Amino acid sequence: MDYRQYFSDELQKLHNEGRYRTFADLERRAGRYPEATHHGVSSDQRVTVWCSNDYLGMGQNQEVVSAAHRILRDTGVGAGGTRNISGTNHNHVRLESELADLHDKQAALLFTSGYVANMTALSTLASRLPDCVVFSDEQNHASMIEGIRHSRAEKHIFRHNDPNDLHRKMSRVAPDRAKLVVFESVYSMDGDFAPIRKICDVAKHHHALTYLDEVHAVGLYGPQGAGVAARDGVMHRVDVIQGTLAKAFGTLGGYISASAELVDFVRSNGSGFIFTTSLPPCISAAAYASIRIVRDNDALRELQQERVQKLKHLMAAAGLPLMQSESHILPLMVGDPVRCREISETLMTEYSIYLQPINYPTVPCGTERLRITPSPVHSDEDIDHLVDALVAVWARYSLRRAA
Amino acid sequence: MDYRQYFSDELQKLHNEGRYRTFADLERRAGRYPEATHHGVSSDQRVTVWCSNDYLGMGQNQEVVSAAHRILRDTGVGAGGTRNISGTNHNHVRLESELADLHDKQAALLFTSGYVANMTALSTLASRLPDCVVFSDEQNHASMIEGIRHSRAEKHIFRHNDPNDLHRKMSRVAPDRAKLVVFESVYSMDGDFAPIRKICDVAKHHHALTYLDEVHAVGLYGPQGAGVAARDGVMHRVDVIQGTLAKAFGTLGGYISASAELVDFVRSNGSGFIFTTSLPPCISAAAYASIRIVRDNDALRELQQERVQKLKHLMAAAGLPLMQSESHILPLMVGDPVRCREISETLMTEYSIYLQPINYPTVPCGTERLRITPSPVHSDEDIDHLVDALVAVWARYSLRRAA
Repeated sequence: MDYRQYFSDELQKLHNEGRYRTFADLERRAGRYPEATHHGVSSDQRVTVWCSNDYLGMGQNQEVVSAAHRILRDTGVGAGGTRNISGTNHNHVRLESELADLHDKQAALLFTSGYVANMTALSTLASRLPDCVVFSDEQNHASMIEGIRHSRAEKHIFRHNDPNDLHRKMSRVAPDRAKLVVFESVYSMDGDFAPIRKICDVAKHHHALTYLDEVHAVGLYGPQGAGVAARDGVMHRVDVIQGTLAKAFGTLGGYISASAELVDFVRSNGSGFIFTTSLPPCISAAAYASIRIVRDNDALRELQQERVQKLKHLMAAAGLPLMQSESHILPLMVGDPVRCREISETLMTEYSIYLQPINYPTVPCGTERLRITPSPVHSDEDIDHLVDALVAVWARYSLRRAA
Repeated sequence: MDYRQYFSDELQKLHNEGRYRTFADLERRAGRYPEATHHGVSSDQRVTVWCSNDYLGMGQNQEVVSAAHRILRDTGVGAGGTRNISGTNHNHVRLESELADLHDKQAALLFTSGYVANMTALSTLASRLPDCVVFSDEQNHASMIEGIRHSRAEKHIFRHNDPNDLHRKMSRVAPDRAKLVVFESVYSMDGDFAPIRKICDVAKHHHALTYLDEVHAVGLYGPQGAGVAARDGVMHRVDVIQGTLAKAFGTLGGYISASAELVDFVRSNGSGFIFTTSLPPCISAAAYASIRIVRDNDALRELQQERVQKLKHLMAAAGLPLMQSESHILPLMVGDPVRCREISETLMTEYSIYLQPINYPTVPCGTERLRITPSPVHSDEDIDHLVDALVAVWARYSLRRAA
């Protein structure tokens, strides 16, 4: 076995398919975001970031940054251990309490990332609930798929956002078995919403636990930014709300929020929770500050939606083929990995616009796209410049335009 | 299925077995660590932390904290995206280059934690290398076990630190199959070292890739703190060195270091790397600063070892039954979860010493222990006070003493 040759060959395949990934080396400028310095191969360049998940620009909010500075000064950098062995800090405890309150649940549990939250909570629940069956939306995120797969529980995939298909599949399983229905509120690459109420109707009819990933929704939708389930008035019907601190809240970490017993069960049994160093206290403090600000700030959510609508309107008027999206995520389909990268490179080098090409495995092959995430920090001028640049690039490459 | 009842019953079992975990709510005082404030139920208390994995106290090092402050001020809190989609910062790139240099490898790859590094790298390598067989030390960490399990590759467990058993097991597998030998350099709960050279001899005889977890060794052993493989002069024979930034380096994050091709292969295929927000730039900057300081600072390593030897000597003289350990990890066996917790509580409330009881699943049932990690920040006075307290507690509970 020639390992090095094998790795080389596999990498060459990615190059040949046009889906080898190159990371843009960026330095965001706090206070001036969406501006960033792009460290290119030969020189540096100022660019405008249009594809970040720091949806509200909270990563540079002065109170959030100050909270991190304060706890960094007081306690140092790392937590120094797992949550059980010297790594629980008062900032973790306070943050978990705030997250439980945000979602009107009894308890919450922090993880080092949203990925780890899904992987750990789902693998723990699905493997330990006796004879559990999982029903999973076909477009669920990789972290949920991996968590379910890791549990080795019986699994049924239901058609995307389709409560009828879910009902059909649940009806075939014995009524008394433990069941877990797993879905997202906002799908990150298409920007569509789940019919949460209807899915809960079906799930509860079959006596299932409901597990909802709200990572692209918390902070952005519903009263106090509690998410789409809250907006739709059905948060109490979702047993587990999973969220992130790394997108709208602008920091790092993931969490689940649920009943005291369920949270304590995952806390006590979840390998990815138990065997890992906890988040730095300064990051938890920043997340706490961010949530408090975002909860109180409907104007920020309204401004984001206003920016989204403005960009959508201008792009539609210019004949740019935006995919159908009801959320703040605006995908612009290209459908070819090589072309998608070319467009991205042209936007960067000629227009100082950073829009990363999105390719497999993040989206299915043949659906390569640009994914635009307008934020309150994008100005009218930023929006106009983006639309002009896209129009010029679309013309140059003779790309398909909207009907 | 009554889910709430099920969770309650399972939690009650943990209580009954004496292994329900309660986290100590702590606030470390930067500049005064190992001192911390323990937020108790009724009142706060100053305690001395004796069980942290911030082995060198780097989490409070002024240059490390300053580096975090600087990048926090310049770039804000979060990275804003995955490494591929807007989340690569110049501080990640520079840190990966430093880690590759530390281990004299071509490349390195950052993960959000050491757990995620093991889970992702091992599941990626073992699932994608065609028909791969994994040979895993029976005492490997949970993150390695989960990563191997997730790969679904054929797996053979070899006896702890036993190259002969490894050889026997490898001999039974077809010579031309891809093979991965997975082990640790310092086992975290017993503190013993692996015979790295001998294990490499066997692994290389059978044409296997070698994967070594050095999370409890990096920063502490070998020239420039490059680890035990470096100390033993065999770093070049280890194909993948996995390490952490959250223990001796005092911050957060994990990594692998290996050939350019292997690292690029994991970067391109590892789900737990691809689908997660990258580390905050300020944390990466702190880790970079910490590594630079620790590499240059043999005196710090020597002081740690001196503290370890001093405590070992005093504990032995006092008849306290330390387990055999060659490393900086000093386990004190209790062997019962309830008693272990009692001792820990007594040390906290009466002696202001924080030593978390270590129980299942972190160690096997019946081997519950206290795990002491002396550090350069522990003074002679701290050491004397710890020994006195342990002697008093050992007498009070009539615990077994050393021969």
